[in-house]
Amino acid sequence: MRPDFSTNRICQLLGITYPIIQAGMIWASGWRLASAVSNAGGLGILGAGSMYPDVLREHIQKCKQATDKPFAVNLPLLYVDIEKHIEIILENQVPIVFTSAGSPRTWTPMLKEKGIKVIHVVSSAAFAQKAEAAGCDAVVAEGYEAGGHNGREQTTTMVLIPQVTRAVSIPVIAAGGIATGEQLLAAMALGACGVQLGTRFVASEESSAHPDFKKIVIQSNEGDTQLVMHKLVPVRLLKNDFYRRIEEAESRGASAEELKEILGRARAKRGMFEGDLQEGELEIGQAASLLDDILPAATIVQNLLRDYARRLAELSSED
Amino acid sequence: MRPDFSTNRICQLLGITYPIIQAGMIWASGWRLASAVSNAGGLGILGAGSMYPDVLREHIQKCKQATDKPFAVNLPLLYVDIEKHIEIILENQVPIVFTSAGSPRTWTPMLKEKGIKVIHVVSSAAFAQKAEAAGCDAVVAEGYEAGGHNGREQTTTMVLIPQVTRAVSIPVIAAGGIATGEQLLAAMALGACGVQLGTRFVASEESSAHPDFKKIVIQSNEGDTQLVMHKLVPVRLLKNDFYRRIEEAESRGASAEELKEILGRARAKRGMFEGDLQEGELEIGQAASLLDDILPAATIVQNLLRDYARRLAELSSED
Repeated sequence: MRPDFSTNRICQLLGITYPIIQAGMIWASGWRLASAVSNAGGLGILGAGSMYPDVLREHIQKCKQATDKPFAVNLPLLYVDIEKHIEIILENQVPIVFTSAGSPRTWTPMLKEKGIKVIHVVSSAAFAQKAEAAGCDAVVAEGYEAGGHNGREQTTTMVLIPQVTRAVSIPVIAAGGIATGEQLLAAMALGACGVQLGTRFVASEESSAHPDFKKIVIQSNEGDTQLVMHKLVPVRLLKNDFYRRIEEAESRGASAEELKEILGRARAKRGMFEGDLQEGELEIGQAASLLDDILPAATIVQNLLRDYARRLAELSSED
Repeated sequence: MRPDFSTNRICQLLGITYPIIQAGMIWASGWRLASAVSNAGGLGILGAGSMYPDVLREHIQKCKQATDKPFAVNLPLLYVDIEKHIEIILENQVPIVFTSAGSPRTWTPMLKEKGIKVIHVVSSAAFAQKAEAAGCDAVVAEGYEAGGHNGREQTTTMVLIPQVTRAVSIPVIAAGGIATGEQLLAAMALGACGVQLGTRFVASEESSAHPDFKKIVIQSNEGDTQLVMHKLVPVRLLKNDFYRRIEEAESRGASAEELKEILGRARAKRGMFEGDLQEGELEIGQAASLLDDILPAATIVQNLLRDYARRLAELSSED
């Protein structure tokens, strides 16, 4: 019942068996999660955004010991130590880099020259065209329902994927709201060649998110996440005390400066890694409401494939 | 190349050939559009929300002359003259009613007793369960990307459809962001039994929207619509001068009263029906950015079916 993706463009590009990519997420995706996803036939990604250079090096090396399959590093381009991160990626011959939150023009040509596949995360067709022009091999198109940082145009996955696939000829990976095999099929129907899942893999056994954060993610219901910080960088959060303070401030028209002050420092770590569920910043996507279990990453991949194949067979036989 | 939907639950429930429903929209969906969609094998809906009772009666009667297929009336339950509207629906034996913007408990039992099929529009699984408990035959689950009035939880179609199909056993019609055959397939993959399209049918030859409004809809790009009026009833609008005044007021924390004052009266008619593109209220969904032509309603239905079948065949052969 495992579908065959041998001619899939993303599988061919990245050398993986299934077009299922685990998003590189701060505080949740270290070597344990990334290697588990890669070993299951998908693509695991180390989230470098929450790692000091030495920590990143350690995770890359441990990931290599844990899997002989391809894996990637996610590099937020605005990271302060970006040059050190890139040095470590080159030194350790990481085969694939996902870039986000910055211009793809700055680093893509150099990484490509070194034989690295570069995939950029975008929230619009216009940004996808810039990524293609910069030489990226593919894009992740991430819709409004995604957790964490998010585009200003608020285009949802349902509209964004057709939009982006029309605008570029490089393969498109769909992200935002996707956690099930039926949604994987929906994303492929929209024209994506693969999917990237963040929220679903936060709630995995191998994720390094705090156990209490994982628990509240799978207990959450519809409407429990919301996009806030519109005057800074918009971010989708699980609602808690910290969220409510931000929401109250935005509702009365608070300035970017005031929002920054309420935010303070290291709140994401406090919430997602240290498990402070009320005062931490809990980045998670709308798909949280669809989850009710914490599973091994390999089971997540297998369930996606099973439910994809089953739903496709149902639709084909109805037709 | 036309798919066979003879065992589809929505087609069986409503007595239609294809599970493609044209949303009942104020100022855009009169008898010309509704009868054209029904004649093409889908379900056309008269948008009663912008009609005086006498106007509604006239549209029902003209619709009946123009088609012998089933059609429906969309009834916003907060409409001031709701009792007169219901009287006219009963008098003229309209077979199907779509209700929205109000509690399904008030009118569903009476309408059902008269043999009318009742379908309620919801924006969450919790509301879907209330509709099922009230005796509704089906629900339309409408995501954040939809035009016009919208739910507070901002759940997108990609997440909402799995959410709602898990919560109820009556059939679910997907709405919000859907304008193409590939999106129809995506909605079915998510578990919907059919789709409801608003924006796509605004840009049809038979729609009664002002020609200048239709033109600006098909010329619009990604990011050109936005949800506003969060302190009143949230509504998705095409960005224009009126939108920017509202947006500026919300950004500085304006009260509901101030928003109401800026809104004033009859702005939707002014924009969508009279064609005042800068000072009118232009309700439209994110799918507007995917459109580039104004087509006959029958062609819209045929294109949806063609592209649905083609994409399904592609995915099945890849597998």
